[in-house]
Amino acid sequence: MAQLHAMTGGEGPLSYAQNSSYQRAVMDVVKPIIEEEITTKLDISQLSPNDSFWIADFGCSTGLNSFLAMHIITEAIQNKFQSASSIINSQSREFYVFFNDHVKNDFNTLFRSLPPERPYQAAGLPGSFHKRLLPKASLHFAYSSWALHWLSQVPKAVTDPTSPAWNKGNVYCGGARQEVYDAYSSQYAEDIDSFLEARAQELVSGGLMALLVPALSIKLDPSYKGEMVLDHIASILMDMAEKGRVSEEKIDSFNFPTYYTFPEELKAIIERNGSYNIERMEVLDNPGKYAVTSAHAHASVYRAVFEDLMTNHFGCEIVDELFETYRLKLEASPDLLLPEKDISIIIFVLLKRKLE
Amino acid sequence: MAQLHAMTGGEGPLSYAQNSSYQRAVMDVVKPIIEEEITTKLDISQLSPNDSFWIADFGCSTGLNSFLAMHIITEAIQNKFQSASSIINSQSREFYVFFNDHVKNDFNTLFRSLPPERPYQAAGLPGSFHKRLLPKASLHFAYSSWALHWLSQVPKAVTDPTSPAWNKGNVYCGGARQEVYDAYSSQYAEDIDSFLEARAQELVSGGLMALLVPALSIKLDPSYKGEMVLDHIASILMDMAEKGRVSEEKIDSFNFPTYYTFPEELKAIIERNGSYNIERMEVLDNPGKYAVTSAHAHASVYRAVFEDLMTNHFGCEIVDELFETYRLKLEASPDLLLPEKDISIIIFVLLKRKLE
Repeated sequence: MAQLHAMTGGEGPLSYAQNSSYQRAVMDVVKPIIEEEITTKLDISQLSPNDSFWIADFGCSTGLNSFLAMHIITEAIQNKFQSASSIINSQSREFYVFFNDHVKNDFNTLFRSLPPERPYQAAGLPGSFHKRLLPKASLHFAYSSWALHWLSQVPKAVTDPTSPAWNKGNVYCGGARQEVYDAYSSQYAEDIDSFLEARAQELVSGGLMALLVPALSIKLDPSYKGEMVLDHIASILMDMAEKGRVSEEKIDSFNFPTYYTFPEELKAIIERNGSYNIERMEVLDNPGKYAVTSAHAHASVYRAVFEDLMTNHFGCEIVDELFETYRLKLEASPDLLLPEKDISIIIFVLLKRKLE
Repeated sequence: MAQLHAMTGGEGPLSYAQNSSYQRAVMDVVKPIIEEEITTKLDISQLSPNDSFWIADFGCSTGLNSFLAMHIITEAIQNKFQSASSIINSQSREFYVFFNDHVKNDFNTLFRSLPPERPYQAAGLPGSFHKRLLPKASLHFAYSSWALHWLSQVPKAVTDPTSPAWNKGNVYCGGARQEVYDAYSSQYAEDIDSFLEARAQELVSGGLMALLVPALSIKLDPSYKGEMVLDHIASILMDMAEKGRVSEEKIDSFNFPTYYTFPEELKAIIERNGSYNIERMEVLDNPGKYAVTSAHAHASVYRAVFEDLMTNHFGCEIVDELFETYRLKLEASPDLLLPEKDISIIIFVLLKRKLE
């Protein structure tokens, strides 16, 4: 069974809520794109006057960035209704937003942080977004941001010592042997296809889906020379193993359940799925890299994302030491924080559910 | 604005999850009643084969008792589908259960405790059940248990020193002056009407609603001589005021936002609302009073229910002392725990949304 993990909950100094400005930075870039796409591509002619309008955010975490996205989306849709029909019609239209994340997600913080003056009723939808979550043909607008790089599980073969894809001495697929890379890449393709298939059932015909997919400008295959955060974390873990602070076996059995795609690969997966028209697809140079520039903030961002996952495997003392070492490493080599060293990109995709 | 409060969260020794056997005891009595009513009264002829079936529990708390109720309800409905239509139809029918409670409710514990093998997709619905929460005409079966005695707020007049309904030296309406009693009773009627009105919009025509309403076999008006838990709590608080442990002002400004109705009153409110046919209404002698018999367990049940509310007003030291004193009082006078001293009843009501 897949190990469940979540962003760090609550609103304290180590929480994801307090350490997600890296992820939030993209909203400034994406806002006009989403507004334009809703204005030009959203088909509201099929809705009867009493139908409520359903939006869902898949992988919402504790919500701060999600609330901003839902605000942008509902406002754009309300404007569309207002320009398309009588004022009475648009004013009485009810919006529902379904906030989805794993059952381990901190929904308490999400619900307690909901904007008091919001134009929608909120609901929490606990469970894996790789499976069906909503009724058939009920959803009008799907959204997912900074979430689809999470795999449903670490590919089985990479933790199996008898497999050619065993990922000994490494913690993800960056620069790994071809077999490891292929196992990750296959798992990703399978997971994205499951996601697209589940949403295809949930979306109404002609419904829209906006995806902000964390990716890289290059392939992570064996030719890759690691300079990503995960490469630094891997090297710190290996140092800790040498010092006897953590066993090599513990590292060998740990792999990040994350995969960073590249544009051609993602496009091919969506086309193979076949349920959607790609209305827009473009690469955004990840603005987060210009938003988070101090060693402390950078280490805190990644700690908020990975702490729960890593604590489950290594225990909390190791994780304290790991992220403290990472922070010191960044302070000692400020060059590592130069935006051009961060090869991450965000792929924006707007999909339209094909008519059935 | 109404003060929000919730049952004690988590799964620890003081949690509602661990201290709700008093409330759970009624399920044994109600199970055959609900099964019979679903078998004979639920109209599934209006559902098309692809429609999902929506159930909601209003006031679910952290869920343990709710999961049991949802299991009974979904099983009875599935049996109904199976006997009414082809097996294929009933097997593909999707169930959604919306768990509602205040935004301060511990939804994290609820979601993490969801039965892994359940025949429904779960969603959390944060917000007051005195307002609209679900889309119009979307809900097929509404349920609420041990929740409708909570008022949306303490009636304003009872905390106003200039009002004839000021409830000085008392903490609820039991045995209070007529003005206080009337203020509580009016607030209750208004709140139940809001609840019924919101659900009337959410339920499909012919949809069912099962309510388990905490009530008393007698009226709480000035003729009432207090022997309820709240009366004991009031008297302990007054003793603490005499000892200087808590100020009289603090007690004067505190009132429980709860009201225990009696059958004739509840029936009149439902009839006045006018959106429902009363299909069944009967008084159950609250089985909880036979299920929780030790002083310790009894004090824990009420602490799990009232701790959050009282801590907000009095602070946690006072609440510790209060419930410890209550426990000692019960131990010193075991007669107080005799089932016949507990005048609480549960009113079971089955309502059917009138056809529009």
